[in-house]
Amino acid sequence: MPKTTASTRDADADAPAGPSIYLISPSGAVADPERARRAAGILASLGHPARFDPAALRRSQRFAGTDAQRAAAFTRAAAQDAPVVMITRGGYGLGRLLPLLDFRALARSGKQWVGLSDFTAFHLAMLARAKAITWAGPALLDDFAVDTPADVDEVTLGCFREAMSGALEVVGFKASGPDGVDARGTLWGGNLSVLCAMLGTPWFPKVRGGILYLEDVNEHPYRIERMLVQLLHAGVLDAQQAVVLGYVNRYALAPHDRGYDLPAALKWLRAQTKTPIVTGLPFGHDRPKLTLPHGATVGFATERRHGWLVFDHVNHDH
Amino acid sequence: MPKTTASTRDADADAPAGPSIYLISPSGAVADPERARRAAGILASLGHPARFDPAALRRSQRFAGTDAQRAAAFTRAAAQDAPVVMITRGGYGLGRLLPLLDFRALARSGKQWVGLSDFTAFHLAMLARAKAITWAGPALLDDFAVDTPADVDEVTLGCFREAMSGALEVVGFKASGPDGVDARGTLWGGNLSVLCAMLGTPWFPKVRGGILYLEDVNEHPYRIERMLVQLLHAGVLDAQQAVVLGYVNRYALAPHDRGYDLPAALKWLRAQTKTPIVTGLPFGHDRPKLTLPHGATVGFATERRHGWLVFDHVNHDH
Repeated sequence: MPKTTASTRDADADAPAGPSIYLISPSGAVADPERARRAAGILASLGHPARFDPAALRRSQRFAGTDAQRAAAFTRAAAQDAPVVMITRGGYGLGRLLPLLDFRALARSGKQWVGLSDFTAFHLAMLARAKAITWAGPALLDDFAVDTPADVDEVTLGCFREAMSGALEVVGFKASGPDGVDARGTLWGGNLSVLCAMLGTPWFPKVRGGILYLEDVNEHPYRIERMLVQLLHAGVLDAQQAVVLGYVNRYALAPHDRGYDLPAALKWLRAQTKTPIVTGLPFGHDRPKLTLPHGATVGFATERRHGWLVFDHVNHDH
Repeated sequence: MPKTTASTRDADADAPAGPSIYLISPSGAVADPERARRAAGILASLGHPARFDPAALRRSQRFAGTDAQRAAAFTRAAAQDAPVVMITRGGYGLGRLLPLLDFRALARSGKQWVGLSDFTAFHLAMLARAKAITWAGPALLDDFAVDTPADVDEVTLGCFREAMSGALEVVGFKASGPDGVDARGTLWGGNLSVLCAMLGTPWFPKVRGGILYLEDVNEHPYRIERMLVQLLHAGVLDAQQAVVLGYVNRYALAPHDRGYDLPAALKWLRAQTKTPIVTGLPFGHDRPKLTLPHGATVGFATERRHGWLVFDHVNHDH
């Protein structure tokens, strides 16, 4: 379990009022709008008044509205008053929108953009095109679609609140991999499938000396390996100071794997690169889920089978 | 059904002796060696004496031997006498070997390298590093693991033989997409997942004005789209004269797709690029399967809902 400096806070309905949240759906359609509304109610109970962009609950085939509708939601999100913009869910669809978005204008809005999974495409593009910091963190349906406010994962909520208020200073987690890492660089990454699907495009940031975090879901280890091999062969892994894996889950091994699994893939990969590869980051498609400043300069260290991410004071003046 | 100039030949045991075949397993392990031996017997019955590389039936986890064993098989294949080198099967594993292979030396061997799927990585690397022509075509277990020689798909066999003998001149197939394409350029491509996994690496060829063929299997249309979007955003699609899709199969749509399917994805994609996108190429994980000269300059035309690939005489002097 990760320790955050927020770990002693209670995730209850008496929490002080936090920043308001504007909800957008840039990727897949929300299957059950009522469930989404209840989740927004949970956020409100926790002190975060949340409202939906007019297009957030739309549908167009598998997408949350047409490309134009989903793209326009970003412009509306940048113009409205709530300081935090959070996605309702991931899925697939952001890649289509990249040529339609003005990332510098979105960065100038000063909003704190929060999400994960398919939203990785936005994180990467904001860094590549606008050198902007965005937030890898919870999504409405992933983390707040629960019965009562007390059911929200405490670490997830605490870290999210600290991140949004600028109070996040350090997170520690149980880690596997090499001890003695002591690095400082740009924190970047996200969903491995989405990240690899942006290699070679103008929205892939050229980060050297970074701390690259990666997670994925529903992908067999050979597919995880194939993507890591692409990053290796493209020179991305060797250019980083550290690779930190989050959750890699919801896949099934097969009898013909015959002992091949994710640890075997990582063992192979570690023999191909000098960049330390650390596992255990509480981020991805599971709980607890940290909220991380994508694009910020951070410290990363490993010691005694723990990893530590140290953040500068990311002050958003609100 | 495709017409090839070989379509009147009989795939029977009385076929004249053709080139011998050397079998390698650069990717996944052969699950059932006896089945592979019977398939090699079918090839022999058809006039193509076939023998296995010493490592072709090995196992190491999910792979057909260790990386070193699989890489060494390429060197042995280049040195032996049979003019044709065919893979037993695809799977995953060739990406690991790319830094271990001397593509110029393999090209100098003059062998006709035949395969598909994961072998796409070899096709692309041979073009990128050695400007070499290789063959996208059948694999032992995909196309020759049948009960009797007569069960081998006739078009697959006929096209393979013509390709290997240098007699392949033209193939026609029922196509969908724009009529009136009239192009000439480098024929290249292969499995979409494998091809996209090489973007950004030194083994991805920089082809301009090419005819890009693509196939894939077991991938939902949104994943197909995500990969095509990557090629679009990386500038690969716009740089080609035509994109020709082969089989895209073995996936299941879900209720939440709500009308989204492969045609919907292609409709969207066609609005993003001026490059004509044609479907119907008999190539990929199904039958019939053409044998295509990867890296060769070819003509490609569409007319009256048919596609035509026109080959120069690719003479390998045997």
